[in-house]
Amino acid sequence: MAAPSIDADRLWNRLMRLAEIGATPKGGVDRQALSEGETEAWRLVIDWAHKAGLVAQTDPAANLFLVWEGRDRTLPPLMAGSHLDSQPTGGKFDGAFGVMAALEAVITLAAAGLRPERDIIVVAWMNEEGSRFAPGMMGSEAFAGVRPIETIHAVKDAKGISTGAEIDRQLAAFPNLARRPLGFPLFAYIEPHIEQHTLLEQAEMTIGIVTGIQGKKTYEVKIEGTKGHAGTLSMRDRRDAVVAFAEVMSRLQAQIGRHDHIKFTVGQLLVEPNAPSIVPERVRFRIDLRHPDNAVLDRCGEFVERICIAAAKPCNANVTPLVSAASNDFDAGLQELIARSAGQRGFPAMPVLSYAGHDARQMAPLCPSAMIFIPCRDGVSHDESEWAEPQHVAAGAQVLCDVLAVLCREVLP
Amino acid sequence: MAAPSIDADRLWNRLMRLAEIGATPKGGVDRQALSEGETEAWRLVIDWAHKAGLVAQTDPAANLFLVWEGRDRTLPPLMAGSHLDSQPTGGKFDGAFGVMAALEAVITLAAAGLRPERDIIVVAWMNEEGSRFAPGMMGSEAFAGVRPIETIHAVKDAKGISTGAEIDRQLAAFPNLARRPLGFPLFAYIEPHIEQHTLLEQAEMTIGIVTGIQGKKTYEVKIEGTKGHAGTLSMRDRRDAVVAFAEVMSRLQAQIGRHDHIKFTVGQLLVEPNAPSIVPERVRFRIDLRHPDNAVLDRCGEFVERICIAAAKPCNANVTPLVSAASNDFDAGLQELIARSAGQRGFPAMPVLSYAGHDARQMAPLCPSAMIFIPCRDGVSHDESEWAEPQHVAAGAQVLCDVLAVLCREVLP
Repeated sequence: MAAPSIDADRLWNRLMRLAEIGATPKGGVDRQALSEGETEAWRLVIDWAHKAGLVAQTDPAANLFLVWEGRDRTLPPLMAGSHLDSQPTGGKFDGAFGVMAALEAVITLAAAGLRPERDIIVVAWMNEEGSRFAPGMMGSEAFAGVRPIETIHAVKDAKGISTGAEIDRQLAAFPNLARRPLGFPLFAYIEPHIEQHTLLEQAEMTIGIVTGIQGKKTYEVKIEGTKGHAGTLSMRDRRDAVVAFAEVMSRLQAQIGRHDHIKFTVGQLLVEPNAPSIVPERVRFRIDLRHPDNAVLDRCGEFVERICIAAAKPCNANVTPLVSAASNDFDAGLQELIARSAGQRGFPAMPVLSYAGHDARQMAPLCPSAMIFIPCRDGVSHDESEWAEPQHVAAGAQVLCDVLAVLCREVLP
Repeated sequence: MAAPSIDADRLWNRLMRLAEIGATPKGGVDRQALSEGETEAWRLVIDWAHKAGLVAQTDPAANLFLVWEGRDRTLPPLMAGSHLDSQPTGGKFDGAFGVMAALEAVITLAAAGLRPERDIIVVAWMNEEGSRFAPGMMGSEAFAGVRPIETIHAVKDAKGISTGAEIDRQLAAFPNLARRPLGFPLFAYIEPHIEQHTLLEQAEMTIGIVTGIQGKKTYEVKIEGTKGHAGTLSMRDRRDAVVAFAEVMSRLQAQIGRHDHIKFTVGQLLVEPNAPSIVPERVRFRIDLRHPDNAVLDRCGEFVERICIAAAKPCNANVTPLVSAASNDFDAGLQELIARSAGQRGFPAMPVLSYAGHDARQMAPLCPSAMIFIPCRDGVSHDESEWAEPQHVAAGAQVLCDVLAVLCREVLP
């Protein structure tokens, strides 16, 4: 038998209702991690889940789990979802689409009178965006054990409020939620998300079968020179930090920036003392490096550190790695299930790489994982104008529903 | 006969008294152009001048003239001095030393019962520093006719107060001062100043016979690219403003920065939007270029403009010249008089180039001009720790007194 059809209107209306929480005047959403807005979003989503017979739970990282209980509660659950937090000037779809698509899929399956073999959990990970508490992906990294919860608790926002204090506040607002331990075995993980790129839109595709997420490394580099008078200090005696930066940047661009599969960006740069007639003493900048192949990314990373130190001379360069997220491939079997559903439903689909990071990156080493992308207008995301077409939202949720139906061994053979 | 000796103690004590006006807690001076502090400094200096029989005058640019009247008032006057304004965290000597040395020299000559052939004018130029109203050298440029007084009047400080309004306030505070027209013929101009460099100190010299001032050009460059997502925008589609800046900077450094007679500095640089994961859209930076030879400086300037535009591609570069001050040589005859006085007085002296700009730059095309440098500790200036030794202050004033004595044709044959 075919999987049941999701209710496209219910999904769209709930997505729009959710977007009212933290709505900005320009049509976007400001619902940052562990804010009052996120608390309100939890209430709303938990209420919808309860009405469908799901059980809400949480964990020490304030991840939200909405559990559709299976017949054998001892089996590792099947999980789908994304996150409910947004950028400060974010949109209605980034994160929220994944959570609501998963909830819609589960509600659809439950309403069809089915009961899954194992638990199916709709998840909303804590602080994916990292705009209030940096860096992001906190909930999924805590779940996967790649970042200690103590480290996460200690992170403070711009006002000096700690993640730990806000997790306590969030959990205290929901005293009746059972607490799961951090991390538990999973059967599979699937995350629907808007693409945040133009590949699907340009190819006029509805469904992106995500093959993997490119790896990312970031560095903070500090070049230290010596300050001096622009009119008097002789050129040969200078240790000019901007000259050193230009040499470093030119060498990196020549060696790394010419290869289109590598993404190499220096987006942030600060000069001190930054006065027109003073030979600059210090340049601090950030390097953002991405590549789908971990071996290439690692080699690039080593190269970056070496070049920064060598090319900055006679200045001293100090390179601090900040983020090192390996690339990952998603599960081939799950990609096949996604492709099969899209084919059966008549949704144009193609494989795409995710150039942005997602919580699914943390799940991929733990269990078979996948992502389902839908197009977003002009590839614009992290912006109040972010937009996804209602038919694409429905298609993404339907494909997820179909795949969950197969995986929970109830609907399709 | 030998020229009379200046009163070293009187000069030092008056310099220290002057430094009380605008004194900062760290021992420096904050007496910016056309401030209440400068008004107070005028009162003090005019009072000293009046007691010595000099006549105070001003002009539409609020330059202060202290006139020792000569026998033939129709002859172009001999002028010496510097400026009374300071940097916000300036020192006791930059500018003030030149004015007070000139006043001491004239008072010494007058007290010796002499009367000069022509007027000798002690000058305090308006706004040399340019820290409150930018750029500086306003009084001497208005006098020399290189910047229209209307342009100067329109310049506003950070609070929105115009130079014109503050000139009116300053002149209204001294209603009895006769107004000279802007600019008048000069017989010669001599400016004593601290060196603001280490050449004299390192060579253990007391007097610097300044051969000229190196030329200076400054530019504002704006590189315009296109903003994008660091993880998704393909390298070949990027118009990355930081990449373009690095290319421009490397080419300029390779072509210009290797020559030690040229001073090439990019001390100020701003990136937009300056976020770690956004391909940068815009870089604005300042170029400071100096050389003693105008032909070389002009060629360098043309080269800079060409390279900025060519090397920034595919970004667009826009180059705006801000300052173009030609280098100048000081009068050989006056240098000889300075050297002769130093030799007779036993002050170790050597020729030096001025790497910083001074009001004397504007006088050099108008009349035979010269500068007398004295050492300052560690070359530090524009800083509250700026310091000159009392014996060097006295030596500089004595040499000026000797030279004025020769030029006014009263003392030496």
